[in-house]
Amino acid sequence: MNKKKIGIIGATGYTGSELVRLLVNHSGVSIELITSESKTDIRFSDIHPQFRGIMDIQLSSMKTVKDHELDLVFLALPHGISMEFVRDHINSNFKIIDLSGDFRLSSKEAYAEWYKAEHIFPEGLKKAVFGSPEFFREKIKTAHLIANPGCFVTSAILALAPLVKNNLIDNKSIIVDSKTGVSGAGVKATDVTHFDNVNDNFKPYGLKKHRHTIEMQEALTAYTGKELTLLFTPHLLPVDRGILTSVYAQPTGKIDEKSLRQLYANFYSKEPFVRVLDDIPSLKRVRGSNYCDIMVNYDERTNRVFVFSAIDNLVKGASGQAIQNMNLMLGLDESDGLRYAPLAP
Amino acid sequence: MNKKKIGIIGATGYTGSELVRLLVNHSGVSIELITSESKTDIRFSDIHPQFRGIMDIQLSSMKTVKDHELDLVFLALPHGISMEFVRDHINSNFKIIDLSGDFRLSSKEAYAEWYKAEHIFPEGLKKAVFGSPEFFREKIKTAHLIANPGCFVTSAILALAPLVKNNLIDNKSIIVDSKTGVSGAGVKATDVTHFDNVNDNFKPYGLKKHRHTIEMQEALTAYTGKELTLLFTPHLLPVDRGILTSVYAQPTGKIDEKSLRQLYANFYSKEPFVRVLDDIPSLKRVRGSNYCDIMVNYDERTNRVFVFSAIDNLVKGASGQAIQNMNLMLGLDESDGLRYAPLAP
Amino acid sequence: MNKKKIGIIGATGYTGSELVRLLVNHSGVSIELITSESKTDIRFSDIHPQFRGIMDIQLSSMKTVKDHELDLVFLALPHGISMEFVRDHINSNFKIIDLSGDFRLSSKEAYAEWYKAEHIFPEGLKKAVFGSPEFFREKIKTAHLIANPGCFVTSAILALAPLVKNNLIDNKSIIVDSKTGVSGAGVKATDVTHFDNVNDNFKPYGLKKHRHTIEMQEALTAYTGKELTLLFTPHLLPVDRGILTSVYAQPTGKIDEKSLRQLYANFYSKEPFVRVLDDIPSLKRVRGSNYCDIMVNYDERTNRVFVFSAIDNLVKGASGQAIQNMNLMLGLDESDGLRYAPLAP
Amino acid sequence: MNKKKIGIIGATGYTGSELVRLLVNHSGVSIELITSESKTDIRFSDIHPQFRGIMDIQLSSMKTVKDHELDLVFLALPHGISMEFVRDHINSNFKIIDLSGDFRLSSKEAYAEWYKAEHIFPEGLKKAVFGSPEFFREKIKTAHLIANPGCFVTSAILALAPLVKNNLIDNKSIIVDSKTGVSGAGVKATDVTHFDNVNDNFKPYGLKKHRHTIEMQEALTAYTGKELTLLFTPHLLPVDRGILTSVYAQPTGKIDEKSLRQLYANFYSKEPFVRVLDDIPSLKRVRGSNYCDIMVNYDERTNRVFVFSAIDNLVKGASGQAIQNMNLMLGLDESDGLRYAPLAP
Repeated sequence: MNKKKIGIIGATGYTGSELVRLLVNHSGVSIELITSESKTDIRFSDIHPQFRGIMDIQLSSMKTVKDHELDLVFLALPHGISMEFVRDHINSNFKIIDLSGDFRLSSKEAYAEWYKAEHIFPEGLKKAVFGSPEFFREKIKTAHLIANPGCFVTSAILALAPLVKNNLIDNKSIIVDSKTGVSGAGVKATDVTHFDNVNDNFKPYGLKKHRHTIEMQEALTAYTGKELTLLFTPHLLPVDRGILTSVYAQPTGKIDEKSLRQLYANFYSKEPFVRVLDDIPSLKRVRGSNYCDIMVNYDERTNRVFVFSAIDNLVKGASGQAIQNMNLMLGLDESDGLRYAPLAP
Repeated sequence: MNKKKIGIIGATGYTGSELVRLLVNHSGVSIELITSESKTDIRFSDIHPQFRGIMDIQLSSMKTVKDHELDLVFLALPHGISMEFVRDHINSNFKIIDLSGDFRLSSKEAYAEWYKAEHIFPEGLKKAVFGSPEFFREKIKTAHLIANPGCFVTSAILALAPLVKNNLIDNKSIIVDSKTGVSGAGVKATDVTHFDNVNDNFKPYGLKKHRHTIEMQEALTAYTGKELTLLFTPHLLPVDRGILTSVYAQPTGKIDEKSLRQLYANFYSKEPFVRVLDDIPSLKRVRGSNYCDIMVNYDERTNRVFVFSAIDNLVKGASGQAIQNMNLMLGLDESDGLRYAPLAP
Repeated sequence: MNKKKIGIIGATGYTGSELVRLLVNHSGVSIELITSESKTDIRFSDIHPQFRGIMDIQLSSMKTVKDHELDLVFLALPHGISMEFVRDHINSNFKIIDLSGDFRLSSKEAYAEWYKAEHIFPEGLKKAVFGSPEFFREKIKTAHLIANPGCFVTSAILALAPLVKNNLIDNKSIIVDSKTGVSGAGVKATDVTHFDNVNDNFKPYGLKKHRHTIEMQEALTAYTGKELTLLFTPHLLPVDRGILTSVYAQPTGKIDEKSLRQLYANFYSKEPFVRVLDDIPSLKRVRGSNYCDIMVNYDERTNRVFVFSAIDNLVKGASGQAIQNMNLMLGLDESDGLRYAPLAP
Repeated sequence: MNKKKIGIIGATGYTGSELVRLLVNHSGVSIELITSESKTDIRFSDIHPQFRGIMDIQLSSMKTVKDHELDLVFLALPHGISMEFVRDHINSNFKIIDLSGDFRLSSKEAYAEWYKAEHIFPEGLKKAVFGSPEFFREKIKTAHLIANPGCFVTSAILALAPLVKNNLIDNKSIIVDSKTGVSGAGVKATDVTHFDNVNDNFKPYGLKKHRHTIEMQEALTAYTGKELTLLFTPHLLPVDRGILTSVYAQPTGKIDEKSLRQLYANFYSKEPFVRVLDDIPSLKRVRGSNYCDIMVNYDERTNRVFVFSAIDNLVKGASGQAIQNMNLMLGLDESDGLRYAPLAP
């Protein structure tokens, strides 16, 4: 079989290195090109030395993308930069999976409101398919441009979709309390990611205005047809990887835990990467893997539904899900390159 | 001035060693006795070697308590054991501060329901004063027996009291999502505290049935006179110390963030150990200290109030608050022994 | 191709779970049997929930080993238990790779001295081949019983072999200062592995008498024919995985860093899992992978050679190296099941 | 008693905040001035919010130092900046304790060689007293300018001094293998201190050329009169605070462990902050305190002496030792402000 030819635009960040980690064992694709604008004339493994002897490809500018016959490119670029690349290459032969936030929202108005900036390629917003395989699998298969979902968004909508779809909760009562590892803040050293500010510490951030809020709402609405408003609060954990999301909501009617669990099990029964559990999810049970572990609960005493979900923010929350989308888009086995068991301990 | 004579019953755990850490610099008391039933004939610093040269007192059995003219004893014992000691010494001359959960609830019925055991000294439940200085200061001053509050409870009720007292929230809508360091699980090695199960990990536990739930409800009701029901979920952080509690509730009427913050600032303006903040609390800003940092927020978009509070679970959540109570009971300066600035980084 | 049939004796520990993590993606073998004496009638994924949906095989007693036509078994048992199994199955058709320390030493006398116990199957010590592929590859290919090396040993002998083999250092001057992650202490909760005793902490242990000392000496002597004495001191790091070993030694003659690095590069040039570096090794660059990263240095000012090596103690230090041995013994590609890039961050 | 008036020049770093943490409970001094050139018109607690309500002093420029009648100032400045301040204020009435490396070496030549820069105030090198109370107490009492020792240096020389002073080891055989927490790298966010580069990781750095090497050598020579050469290698631990140093050396003659331990106990018997132990030191047993814990060992089999020492790098390794020096210089109780028991867990 001819391997599909892949480009990775943006080598220096964690989503770029994570794509490589997963793709080196993928049987159906080969990495033809990895780009960096700030660092060329060096090898990928010079930036990410864990890849020495594994991926020593020379880095080149994204301008060289036209010199390769690529089937698909991943954009592992900062938001704002991605939209320029998409605008300039939307008519290229290669398909595009954008890992940034640039094409995830429904309209330039929503983008302007939550990103506090003007979108330079609003037509892209219309063309992009939101890359949640569990909700939009058929559209993804034929898409030319995928907006790969945000990490918090993936953890929240997988936890909420069965409830919203089945009208089981008051759509104004939803609280999403997420806790994330530091790699979500990126590879760049900042006060936020300074070891002494994170280690043995814990704190909320991004109160009320985190951009993933609107993305959660829009994705759930797109999938279920229901309007909803949710309050989202992220917190920073002293761990490298992983998001644990706790969702709370008020039921609309009578409900019991056993039926809820059965509903979730049925809902995700065909999904290769969603595991519905009867015991409590944790970050290490999914670390390094593409799984999302989910547990739904009902508390009679207070009449609340609450759901926990756990993902690796760099895998199911970013690069792993991107590869799952790639597999669908290129007609490959959906799980190829993603059959990693979680790394624990 | 004659120093007050203090005994610490139970030397091996973290609340015992934390009492010593704080009391060695207290100007008004001297530690006369530290007991251990499992380990006698050795020194306190043999169990807690950080105290070598600081507190090398010989350990003895709690039976020797009668050989000392003590003014006050701290019970740093497992729950269930504490109630025996209290039953046997309730008429002694020394006052008692119990750091276990044995005397925190209002009735033997509540105890039986949440602790799944019968209380052997229910009269003690009536005599005990709940040791929250912010809410029961006057009663504490004259109390003979103090039930020192649970760590989660302290963080939650300090966050909630201004709202509940002023009828600002729907008392059925309260969600308490707490995240705690490992020292809350005690000094004993278990699967829960095994490094490889905690490090780089995060998970909820104690779903729906954690005993601190009823303690939060009862303490708030005792202070405010209002009934309430709340859903409490603790999570385990990969840190040694600290609790960050996120509280969510639905307002009963019109509300705004600025007034809320002013209300909190006024409410706690005289408190030596509550700091009302305009910026986000975090564990390291209170680590090793007796402070509780609080920030209240209101989100217009979803019409929710949410509050964050941060404490050191071993200090304001246990031994520090116990010393604050001791100071009140013995007529000492309320802050003596507690003037430690937080340890950061 | 017919897949080789594998058994894993001992399911509950980290070496057992790590064998499964790596073998599930191995193209040439299938896991037929996983045993546990303490926990049967449950699935492997009930003990190690990260494997839910990946390895849900029912556990059975090691007595059932005779009911399977196995090609090879791994012993992931505590030392002392392993030697009983080997004694009882040495004439079975299946080959054996023992991950414990039971068959690593040269004689029952050495075993008695360093393990403070009598060896119950000393003939096994003669039959066992020491499973360092870099030094004993040909013997391993035809071995029936492999003693898989200790984790510290692997990191130390890979760092030292080029120096000792080439008579470059005084064999009485060697100091091995190793730092290990907590998973090396096993899955069982003890005071040593209690989170609060490890987190934000660091300490040496096992002074002068750690059993890996003699194993290092004997392995190097077996490979090089030279006698040597070394001082080994392990330290406990607040990390899950990884060993970083710092080796110091006095040169016998004139030496320079550039030649030393070339010597190392040549020495390991054909090795699939040894990477000789010009920059500093670290744990995260090998985490989850079978690589050993090595950097050799020479300090003119003090006339010392010093070498750093980094491995993942559960992979190259245990289960990964065991699979490398298995591949050699079964005639498979030496790298199969081991092509994992390191997990960073 | 009139309190002595203190200034802290340089507010933003960890040594500055640690000085404040310790001094707020000092009975003999008051902080009159804290300076910052980059951040004025804000309060100290705006930069270090853990001090809210504890130290809310307004920051001002170091130029205002002349407006205060100060008894002593601490320089918590980057090296290079400190020497300018000292040059400009060497004739002021206040004494100076410099926490940077600017005045620790013996000569401008040594400075030029190891710091790769020219010293702008070489006379200061002659005037400065090296601030190790254990070795230079009498000189410190009358000094006008103190060069406060480096953190690694303190841990190494306290471990080595009894051996060198008594001619017990070959002074060319010394190996110093140190492991430090991240706060030693300072408050500024860099790739080195990026959480994802440190957490669950471990690595050596600063090979052969770390500036503390020459400082160790010179300090030991100044105290003992012996020449020596040592190889120093620091490693970076995923912890906030603490240095654990492992020292190895070859004995010059016959030696035994019992006598060595007695020698160390005698050597430091009068020291308030050195604890000679028979059991293994660790970081958490000194965290937050001014103690240095030391254990000396002898291995007969390999004929090596090895010593472990543990300090908190920000306390005994910086600000605590600076306060110990201040107490000596101002005729105060040497332990005042330093009676903190270690924070564990």
